[in-house]
Amino acid sequence: MKQSKAWTAETIAIGSELLLGGRMDTNSLFVAERLAACGVELRYKSIVGDELSDIVRVLKTAARRARVVIMTGGLGPTIDDLTREAVAQAAGVRLSRRKTALDGMVARLAAWGRTPTKAQFRQAMIPTGAEVLANPVGTAPGFTLIWNGVFVAALPGVPREMEPMILEGVLPRLQAWIGKHKRIPATPVIRRVLHTSGVPESIVDQRLEGLLPQGSVIQLGIYASPMEVMVSLTGPGKDSGVMTIERLCDEARVRLGDIVYGEEQDTMESVVGRLLTDRQMTLALAESCTGGLIGHRLTQVPGSSSYVDRGIISYSNRAKVDLLGVSPDLLARHGAVSAEVAAAMARGIRERSGVSVGLSVTGIAGPGGGTDTKPVGLVYVGLDGGPKDAFTKEFRFHGGDRSVIKQRSSQAALDLLRRWLIKTGGG
Amino acid sequence: MKQSKAWTAETIAIGSELLLGGRMDTNSLFVAERLAACGVELRYKSIVGDELSDIVRVLKTAARRARVVIMTGGLGPTIDDLTREAVAQAAGVRLSRRKTALDGMVARLAAWGRTPTKAQFRQAMIPTGAEVLANPVGTAPGFTLIWNGVFVAALPGVPREMEPMILEGVLPRLQAWIGKHKRIPATPVIRRVLHTSGVPESIVDQRLEGLLPQGSVIQLGIYASPMEVMVSLTGPGKDSGVMTIERLCDEARVRLGDIVYGEEQDTMESVVGRLLTDRQMTLALAESCTGGLIGHRLTQVPGSSSYVDRGIISYSNRAKVDLLGVSPDLLARHGAVSAEVAAAMARGIRERSGVSVGLSVTGIAGPGGGTDTKPVGLVYVGLDGGPKDAFTKEFRFHGGDRSVIKQRSSQAALDLLRRWLIKTGGG
Repeated sequence: MKQSKAWTAETIAIGSELLLGGRMDTNSLFVAERLAACGVELRYKSIVGDELSDIVRVLKTAARRARVVIMTGGLGPTIDDLTREAVAQAAGVRLSRRKTALDGMVARLAAWGRTPTKAQFRQAMIPTGAEVLANPVGTAPGFTLIWNGVFVAALPGVPREMEPMILEGVLPRLQAWIGKHKRIPATPVIRRVLHTSGVPESIVDQRLEGLLPQGSVIQLGIYASPMEVMVSLTGPGKDSGVMTIERLCDEARVRLGDIVYGEEQDTMESVVGRLLTDRQMTLALAESCTGGLIGHRLTQVPGSSSYVDRGIISYSNRAKVDLLGVSPDLLARHGAVSAEVAAAMARGIRERSGVSVGLSVTGIAGPGGGTDTKPVGLVYVGLDGGPKDAFTKEFRFHGGDRSVIKQRSSQAALDLLRRWLIKTGGG
Repeated sequence: MKQSKAWTAETIAIGSELLLGGRMDTNSLFVAERLAACGVELRYKSIVGDELSDIVRVLKTAARRARVVIMTGGLGPTIDDLTREAVAQAAGVRLSRRKTALDGMVARLAAWGRTPTKAQFRQAMIPTGAEVLANPVGTAPGFTLIWNGVFVAALPGVPREMEPMILEGVLPRLQAWIGKHKRIPATPVIRRVLHTSGVPESIVDQRLEGLLPQGSVIQLGIYASPMEVMVSLTGPGKDSGVMTIERLCDEARVRLGDIVYGEEQDTMESVVGRLLTDRQMTLALAESCTGGLIGHRLTQVPGSSSYVDRGIISYSNRAKVDLLGVSPDLLARHGAVSAEVAAAMARGIRERSGVSVGLSVTGIAGPGGGTDTKPVGLVYVGLDGGPKDAFTKEFRFHGGDRSVIKQRSSQAALDLLRRWLIKTGGG
């Protein structure tokens, strides 16, 4: 976003284990969006291990190329936790034990019936000149420091500690600091997000072709992952900018149509949960190849116990017969992975549990179990909302491993339910 | 690892969407392990958007602090794909269309019955002096370049293209190049990993205190996540180094005892799966607060259908009564979240499904539903392996949100099953 070059940010994640990856990074989006709302653009991300000299070096590089540096991790009690030392060394200041930092930590531990260990006292050591940030969730305090005209914040890496500390501690200080630099305009950047499901990236791309007028300052992003294609519009959030982005977002919504399942922080499970709640409907699941993933996703949403009644993970054929009333004859004739069995599973779970709607999935997640006629990735979803309101749908997922096929199957099933709920609601 | 400082590496991932995170990074571990085996240590990871000047800047910084730079992404056909331009600009060389690059791409597309689009011809533009790397899977060729004494490789970001190109293209060239620098020893580095469950980081830390002799070149890493504490030993994989690491790993295993549930790539679900398979036992689940997560995790393992018979997600009390035979009286007397109900759920699922062992979880995942006597985070796990072989265990998980409590509950339940299986096996 060229209009905000003056206010650029870099994040530094500290921890040798992070160099190896394998974890989902959920912090970046959170930080990027909150900074953008203040007119600060995230331009670089660095990841570094627990070696002091490496952290100092990365911090110095960041301070040369960005005006805001957000560090996460390395604030714990062990000798591997060196963020405090690195900031002090880079900025040429000392560390001292700060009362506010210590008091917060002692209070937090006391609430859990514990007292600080010797090692935990290290956590109250803060660079001179830094402001202590309270940690409302864990024991490690954070801090902010203005150093050589750069705003530096150090926070724990755990999202549930980092997030409130960004909102309550970092942003107010950052905004106040930006406010002092009247000659450098900070244009807040806003970002609108649409989530789509059920079509590949190329189709989304095609439908949005020419959406942005020539030379527009607004950026269009299209990002594919196994479960969805996400569309983002990013641009100046001042004057006519907001209206322009909203207008383009409306236009994108029209062009994309019903493949848009949600916006902003929505997840498929939260959208389905909202629809079930609105319609005062209850749901029961019969999962075969997804193995419980749909139940897991739906129950990630607080309050889901009011509409999720039960689920059956009918991994064996015997479970399909015993618990869902699928006839052994049907299984023998069509095989467990068939539209007929998906329909019987959805009907069985609805009738036996007495809920409003039953949802079923049966398929071949691989890597074994595929045949020429029933290859890995073949999946049937069944939905049963009553005797005259039942159907199945076949999916063929190509080119993914077991985990990806499970994810796509769960998403396809929930999307089918979403579409049915919208239709049923008469909305 | 101090002994290999001479051969350090940095990875640079290019793509604006990567700045926002939200994806699993599986490339890093692959690259880090392959480099370590050549004696090259991954020390920094950088992520940068699609702006040319930013990529050039990040590449120059990397070339100052590392001797090996692996760039991924930005090699596609669109005008946002700027890795080729950035390398040429940083190294001060030109781009030219290379015949080997073009031929490989044309052949690949021909195999799919297609011809290159105009945009795809850009993919054959390679910096002068660079060696073209064939892409055996996709259309974008990569390249390697020695620039100012630094080994630079540029590869696509997609794992299934990047991985074979590392193995077949980058590593042979890197090893040949390292071989020319006889004065700088490249010591291969090996890494051993132990996974522990059920105790906090501080306890693991305590038990391993003094494990490493003073001045040891071996590094001990202790990494906590919601589901486990991981221990790693990293050090030279040459001469006596391998033996030293193995000896320390044995010692760590003894000190940690039965909290070690697995090693290297093991997951709790793969370990439990192996134990069930060895003992020819079958399993059925009765999940309340975990909502299907245990079933989902177990069925992530290929072949799990041979031991996972079924699962019940008994979210409502009615489901507990109907499907697990929990008596309404018991529910009324003790409440759904109680040791008594956990026991009845485990017994019910085992008896009704006829499996070897039943595993149950009931608890309060929050944020609502907690009381003074039964707070959020209170969880009971039940295991039933037969009339005289059943027990329950109470857990109190502090300081996590709904998702974390679900994760910890699933891990605690699977760990209980693991310990019981080991005991039962008489191993």
